[in-house]
Amino acid sequence: MIRVGIIGGAGYTAGELIRILLGHPDAEIVFVNSTSNAGNKISAVHGGLIGEIDMLFTDQLPLDTIDLLFFCTAHGDTRKFIEANTLPEELKVIDLSMDYRIEADDNPFIYGLPELNRRAICSSRYVANPGCFAMAIELALLPLARYLMLNDDVYVNAITGSTGAGVKPSPTTHFSWRNNNISIYKPFTHQHLPEILQSIRHLQNSFKSDINFIPYRGDFSRGIFVTAVVKNTVDIEELYTIYREYYEADSFVHVTEEQIDLKQVVNTNNCLLHLEKHGDKLLVVSCIDNLVKGASGNAVHNMNLLFNLKETTGLRLKAIGF
Amino acid sequence: MIRVGIIGGAGYTAGELIRILLGHPDAEIVFVNSTSNAGNKISAVHGGLIGEIDMLFTDQLPLDTIDLLFFCTAHGDTRKFIEANTLPEELKVIDLSMDYRIEADDNPFIYGLPELNRRAICSSRYVANPGCFAMAIELALLPLARYLMLNDDVYVNAITGSTGAGVKPSPTTHFSWRNNNISIYKPFTHQHLPEILQSIRHLQNSFKSDINFIPYRGDFSRGIFVTAVVKNTVDIEELYTIYREYYEADSFVHVTEEQIDLKQVVNTNNCLLHLEKHGDKLLVVSCIDNLVKGASGNAVHNMNLLFNLKETTGLRLKAIGF
Amino acid sequence: MIRVGIIGGAGYTAGELIRILLGHPDAEIVFVNSTSNAGNKISAVHGGLIGEIDMLFTDQLPLDTIDLLFFCTAHGDTRKFIEANTLPEELKVIDLSMDYRIEADDNPFIYGLPELNRRAICSSRYVANPGCFAMAIELALLPLARYLMLNDDVYVNAITGSTGAGVKPSPTTHFSWRNNNISIYKPFTHQHLPEILQSIRHLQNSFKSDINFIPYRGDFSRGIFVTAVVKNTVDIEELYTIYREYYEADSFVHVTEEQIDLKQVVNTNNCLLHLEKHGDKLLVVSCIDNLVKGASGNAVHNMNLLFNLKETTGLRLKAIGF
Amino acid sequence: MIRVGIIGGAGYTAGELIRILLGHPDAEIVFVNSTSNAGNKISAVHGGLIGEIDMLFTDQLPLDTIDLLFFCTAHGDTRKFIEANTLPEELKVIDLSMDYRIEADDNPFIYGLPELNRRAICSSRYVANPGCFAMAIELALLPLARYLMLNDDVYVNAITGSTGAGVKPSPTTHFSWRNNNISIYKPFTHQHLPEILQSIRHLQNSFKSDINFIPYRGDFSRGIFVTAVVKNTVDIEELYTIYREYYEADSFVHVTEEQIDLKQVVNTNNCLLHLEKHGDKLLVVSCIDNLVKGASGNAVHNMNLLFNLKETTGLRLKAIGF
Repeated sequence: MIRVGIIGGAGYTAGELIRILLGHPDAEIVFVNSTSNAGNKISAVHGGLIGEIDMLFTDQLPLDTIDLLFFCTAHGDTRKFIEANTLPEELKVIDLSMDYRIEADDNPFIYGLPELNRRAICSSRYVANPGCFAMAIELALLPLARYLMLNDDVYVNAITGSTGAGVKPSPTTHFSWRNNNISIYKPFTHQHLPEILQSIRHLQNSFKSDINFIPYRGDFSRGIFVTAVVKNTVDIEELYTIYREYYEADSFVHVTEEQIDLKQVVNTNNCLLHLEKHGDKLLVVSCIDNLVKGASGNAVHNMNLLFNLKETTGLRLKAIGF
Repeated sequence: MIRVGIIGGAGYTAGELIRILLGHPDAEIVFVNSTSNAGNKISAVHGGLIGEIDMLFTDQLPLDTIDLLFFCTAHGDTRKFIEANTLPEELKVIDLSMDYRIEADDNPFIYGLPELNRRAICSSRYVANPGCFAMAIELALLPLARYLMLNDDVYVNAITGSTGAGVKPSPTTHFSWRNNNISIYKPFTHQHLPEILQSIRHLQNSFKSDINFIPYRGDFSRGIFVTAVVKNTVDIEELYTIYREYYEADSFVHVTEEQIDLKQVVNTNNCLLHLEKHGDKLLVVSCIDNLVKGASGNAVHNMNLLFNLKETTGLRLKAIGF
Repeated sequence: MIRVGIIGGAGYTAGELIRILLGHPDAEIVFVNSTSNAGNKISAVHGGLIGEIDMLFTDQLPLDTIDLLFFCTAHGDTRKFIEANTLPEELKVIDLSMDYRIEADDNPFIYGLPELNRRAICSSRYVANPGCFAMAIELALLPLARYLMLNDDVYVNAITGSTGAGVKPSPTTHFSWRNNNISIYKPFTHQHLPEILQSIRHLQNSFKSDINFIPYRGDFSRGIFVTAVVKNTVDIEELYTIYREYYEADSFVHVTEEQIDLKQVVNTNNCLLHLEKHGDKLLVVSCIDNLVKGASGNAVHNMNLLFNLKETTGLRLKAIGF
Repeated sequence: MIRVGIIGGAGYTAGELIRILLGHPDAEIVFVNSTSNAGNKISAVHGGLIGEIDMLFTDQLPLDTIDLLFFCTAHGDTRKFIEANTLPEELKVIDLSMDYRIEADDNPFIYGLPELNRRAICSSRYVANPGCFAMAIELALLPLARYLMLNDDVYVNAITGSTGAGVKPSPTTHFSWRNNNISIYKPFTHQHLPEILQSIRHLQNSFKSDINFIPYRGDFSRGIFVTAVVKNTVDIEELYTIYREYYEADSFVHVTEEQIDLKQVVNTNNCLLHLEKHGDKLLVVSCIDNLVKGASGNAVHNMNLLFNLKETTGLRLKAIGF
């Protein structure tokens, strides 16, 4: 049994992590740390947990009682914590913040995208879980990068659910505003672009073009739906072959010739990919659940890899369907 | 031209009031006061006004330049203002807060429900606009009260859109929580019950039973949909006659034998009423747009009455339909 | 391993049943019969199954290869089938239609509400799964019936998601109409009332009052949220005790003193119950997922009972949360 | 008073046209023809009209009693009708179908985009109202075309509400499927592309690049939100000047440097445009209400032009806001 601690326990990714871990046969939640909610019932903060967990949030951090620590902290706080504290030597860490995703000489974390770095993750101790947009876009583009096919600008639109904006209420997550509304934010400059470029260049070091990424705010709670268009002269059948081969050993990425829609992946750890060609333009469609494959589900996937479990353990989640 | 000032201009009812007044042929907005937004463009705060109004919010209150002052203030703030300031003698006032809805010896306001108090409103100077739930429930029950037919407990369920909760973001108006969710609040104790009882007793002074009112939070932005069940032994045809006669002279209340749905009234100043009988139980269904008939539209209706205009002036709003 | 067949495989309850059974450790889907979709991929009809199941729909019914047959047929079709065919002697049956829910001398089915009939279900062969509204309302009222406390009219409002209306497109499930809309249907006369009365009278044979049930159409996909108001003079603490004792041995019904909201149960087999008292009025709030606890999840619960499995097997589903 | 007839009266665009015309001071609806609904009340088919119109649908076509005929017919049916019938000589026609949008020697219709063809519309008799996607995309691109700035592929994503798919229920407009879902359709091949290219080439005859258009199905009822990205080396300030000058004389198109969102235009005849530059990439954001500016509102705009009214007559519609 993997003994797990969670820090930053009151946010959305922590809630989703708890919901997933409660169904994991080989993990046990030892504590959930939250300074803002210490002493409160976890089930009073996170929906869907009444009758499932009686534990309270704690302001303690008994790191010597656990095998694995998940950071569900705000961006910046993981780094502060790591720099201020000495972690027990055997303790493994999975960080869901963006603090350690970009490689650097003094960065001991491995980028936790199993479809790119599975082997490295299996033998590492510190894992930086990818960003949700980054996850959906990288899975759409990596097979092309492996074949050095990204030689022109890529035009990416991606629409995200409101849970991507976190638990803190704000004008753009106010129901009255967001309901039945569509808008964009941070066009061309979203903070996930550096990790996307880093992953692409792992496979195609020569990539020099632009990823023109327009993020949309969607009027739904969960999920990310991506369309990426790029010039490409290869036949659609060959492209399907390339994508299928790339993801052959991966449990959660499915390539399909049928049209896909977002709800097929909501509440699952799956990513669906679909391709279309028109003249010299290739369209790649990709969708994930931003809280599962885009965050806490992938974090549990990384946990399974760190502890040599079957990668699907605890992650065969029932799709919502509707 | 009626010269209008608005105080509390950054909230939802003020925004809706501005949108309505811009299409009113006999009213002119002179100023919109907002302490929090003084100096900002009105169109940057309230949706749908780009290209329609260039005015800025002001922190000034030039009361001698206007004929009518709308209070769109938080509950409690109208009373504070009225008690602290002397209003120009000719100035008329319409208050959208709940401060002056309950009659009292020292309350100079008339309760602004035209379907109950039209004549009194026409000859008054200070009008207290009804609460949104109160509006929908009173219009459902008043014809019964006029015939002294409310002689048993009334069971009322009413579901409201998120705009009823105001512009300030909160956990229960967070999109991630409210989307596709249903919940209740303040069962049996909602703050609109006193004004509902007051209006019923205007017509049926003997009313002594309970209004068992369960307010629901709906996962939509606009509208209130009410079902009220009460024991009644009169034939359905007679009941329809009673309701039609009650509202014969009213422009905005429509009684229909067809099933009704909320979107038929969204973005209009209309109230639809529908009746069903089953044994000794009468069901009354009522729906309004909480921001229009339930707030700013009815306030403009009151303005029309105060200034002897045709009551529908500026209020033949296009229904949203979808 | 329980070998399972499904008839009526293209509808919503069949889709949900398949999604649940794929995660059940002791059940194996042998065939999914659908006349309309024979030869098509199951994953092309039911969302969320790409990469999870490769099986095609069949028009065959190899009943001798299975241990258990689920009827996900339209109302009326189960009875027709049962009357026209002789089932293998050992074959067990769970019917999700309403054909056999009402007891009769020639009805070999037991009403499949585990919280009322667990022991009888365990020793039976044919189970009639309850209706979704009936499930949510019965769980709200049965503890009162056990204590013979239902001695006055009960006023029930319940709002359902669109999946309750089935897969066939219709004007009232058209997105353009239903989105952000609220309406009612079949007030006082919903077809689930007879089974509700039957269950209440199992515990309180004297019950002679009305269940005044107003069904609402909600603008969400999944879930049923119920409020029931009835006169009651017992203290709230005692009532909580009565409810907790009633459901003490049940795995999926949770009684809580905190306010509840629908999404806490969406995608789970749980029912949440919450009580409030005001004067002599008791309010019971109840919510379930109409496709899980209200249909296919409860059907799997019944399967677990029929085959002497732990009742929660395969039913610890991750809540959607958002 | 312009006497108006409508053919194809039971669809969404007809309903919206009726709702708009009822508030138009200079138009009178003489008949609404519908073969499927002849004899039924218009208010029973189209939401929001109870109390507003008592007229019934007719199967008659008294063309000599009207000045203007609106075709709200299915694509193909206008052409069939025009070819089979001789219209009264003075009768003017506005066609909302796509039958006559593409110029041809034997096509007597003018393309009804006032922002491109105002003068020609004013002096014409037959007007072909633009497609909804075409409207939003053309308004985004025409200022660039006037300055011959479209010299590279244009990457267009546009998301539409469900009303764009019409009143007939279908699997992709089923609420259970569409709610909280996102998908695409007809990538690169949408039927509005020819009219978009035609309009661009009116101003920039040399345009030879691709419009790579990915249409999204949104989970909302009303509106179209477009992002278009194209290479451009001009300064953002100059581009704003170009856009403002292009639309200077137009009443309904507003160019703004603030971020825009869809609900700012819902229920209005407005189009909002916003620009951003990043390196050599220009992003144009555009949004309209698909049923108003994208269909029936623009048709009334064309009516105003045909009959020499002020172009905004009857079209200062209150924005929904929420």
